[in-house]
Amino acid sequence: MTPNATDSSPALVAIDLGTSSFRAWLLDADGNALDSVQDDLGILKVPSGNFEAVFDDQLCPWFEKHGPLPALASGMIGSRQGWVEAPYVACPAGPKELADHLAVVRTSSSITLHIVPGMNYSDEGVPDVMRGEETQVAGAIADWQLSKVCVLPGTHSKWMLVRDGCIQQFKTFMTGELFSLLVEYSILGRLMEGREFDDAAFERGCRIVMESEGELLSQLFSARTLGLFEQLPLTGIHSYLSGLIICSEIREGLAKFPQLNEAQARPVKLIGDETLLRLYQRAFDLTKSKSELVKGHPVTWGLFEIARAASLIA
Amino acid sequence: MTPNATDSSPALVAIDLGTSSFRAWLLDADGNALDSVQDDLGILKVPSGNFEAVFDDQLCPWFEKHGPLPALASGMIGSRQGWVEAPYVACPAGPKELADHLAVVRTSSSITLHIVPGMNYSDEGVPDVMRGEETQVAGAIADWQLSKVCVLPGTHSKWMLVRDGCIQQFKTFMTGELFSLLVEYSILGRLMEGREFDDAAFERGCRIVMESEGELLSQLFSARTLGLFEQLPLTGIHSYLSGLIICSEIREGLAKFPQLNEAQARPVKLIGDETLLRLYQRAFDLTKSKSELVKGHPVTWGLFEIARAASLIA
Repeated sequence: MTPNATDSSPALVAIDLGTSSFRAWLLDADGNALDSVQDDLGILKVPSGNFEAVFDDQLCPWFEKHGPLPALASGMIGSRQGWVEAPYVACPAGPKELADHLAVVRTSSSITLHIVPGMNYSDEGVPDVMRGEETQVAGAIADWQLSKVCVLPGTHSKWMLVRDGCIQQFKTFMTGELFSLLVEYSILGRLMEGREFDDAAFERGCRIVMESEGELLSQLFSARTLGLFEQLPLTGIHSYLSGLIICSEIREGLAKFPQLNEAQARPVKLIGDETLLRLYQRAFDLTKSKSELVKGHPVTWGLFEIARAASLIA
Repeated sequence: MTPNATDSSPALVAIDLGTSSFRAWLLDADGNALDSVQDDLGILKVPSGNFEAVFDDQLCPWFEKHGPLPALASGMIGSRQGWVEAPYVACPAGPKELADHLAVVRTSSSITLHIVPGMNYSDEGVPDVMRGEETQVAGAIADWQLSKVCVLPGTHSKWMLVRDGCIQQFKTFMTGELFSLLVEYSILGRLMEGREFDDAAFERGCRIVMESEGELLSQLFSARTLGLFEQLPLTGIHSYLSGLIICSEIREGLAKFPQLNEAQARPVKLIGDETLLRLYQRAFDLTKSKSELVKGHPVTWGLFEIARAASLIA
């Protein structure tokens, strides 16, 4: 795969190794991708935890062809279960602080791999952590001085406040994981017929949350009873539950990030997989909060930005 | 098993057939149990849905010995997946209304089985249902005229308001099911070491909820991060999550049942399995709400009360 093959010289090998996927890009000195590889070898699937074998196997051709390029990785590769632990950096921190705390691995084939640390934040004594999302945000925020709230939906959704060049604080929501568990294993999944998107059902799930005050434990059951009483088509229960849970996250997040009341902080910046972002954007619309999709490749941009801050590239 | 063998005559066969258990009692004319049987034959385990075979098998000895006694059953046996459907009765309804809507099955051995209907309630257009809990409450509330709030913790916890001889409204919370799913399948279960009760961890989980406003989706993740940062022993995560989720139910319930602000409605009446009730009582204590355990056998009392209202017994 060669998304943007040009004649420019390679300058950085950028790697994102998460829980369930491996992606790498060969970037030129302007951050353009000259080549890329991807695989489903996330940290949980690396045989015997032998990261070096995966690294060699996937990236050897680039190093053989272009010499010992600098290499920078982000994501779960820096966790305790990853290749080498890159300890969390505390908020507030931005690309500069991340660059100052890179972990380093020297491979037996003499490649030096740098790993971006995760970040932690203490919210009134309760710790929170992330790993990988800080790099996506580093690639998405062109102006780090303005207050910006970024939302990265997913298994463990992250909301972040960026200001004065740093991620000031962030919060994790178990939205995606909870939704999957309820669909797969709970009584709510039993009545569901299919998973096709039903906009009216999604909106209804959102509205039930918007018209209430944090009543998730009881509202969840409505995904069963509305189906039982034929007040919702069984083909719409999946979307209804999705709206209900996503909107619960947004309700909690808006309360947690009052900075969104400041005009300069709006719109919310949505970062991640476009299909999921469209759902969040629909839910934000319903709550009358403006949101904006960040297009492009925040991960590669973020790795490029951090590599520059670390002087790995000119 | 013969809990209270006396010389009095049997007057009623009382049956509770739920999702996962079968229990029956031979009651005398004062509601005392002369004999009882139990099995794990809940509606999901009845072979080929042949309820009559289970009924005959379990209860035949009583009918053979004492003749065609009236028989009354409650629980999922009256659901669409049960023996015969006993359609929901709408709130407000009490023992009298339940007695007026019993479903009837005539078995091939000429026994007439009556089945207590479930109840439904519409909360601003959103339906809610229960089946079995109405009978427990019927057995627990001696004075149906006073406002009383009953809480029946479980897989799908129920809160009910009783007044003027009727269950006026009720609300289901998916507390128990959500807790089980998170322990079994989520990332939160992975750090847990054991399930022994840790009071300090339980209290901590309760407090984090009490000091906030409906932030369950984000608070759940603290059951992981507190463990990761060694701010909570791994042996306490199970209790911490339990406190967090139970107290979330109580926070939602207290908001949903403002009647608890009236002195006569207090204390909350807790009905069900004593081990679980102790946890709820601890959580209610922490929220400074008074609660009281209903002792004894609410299901048999409820079946007895409804049988009397239906004139099945004198």
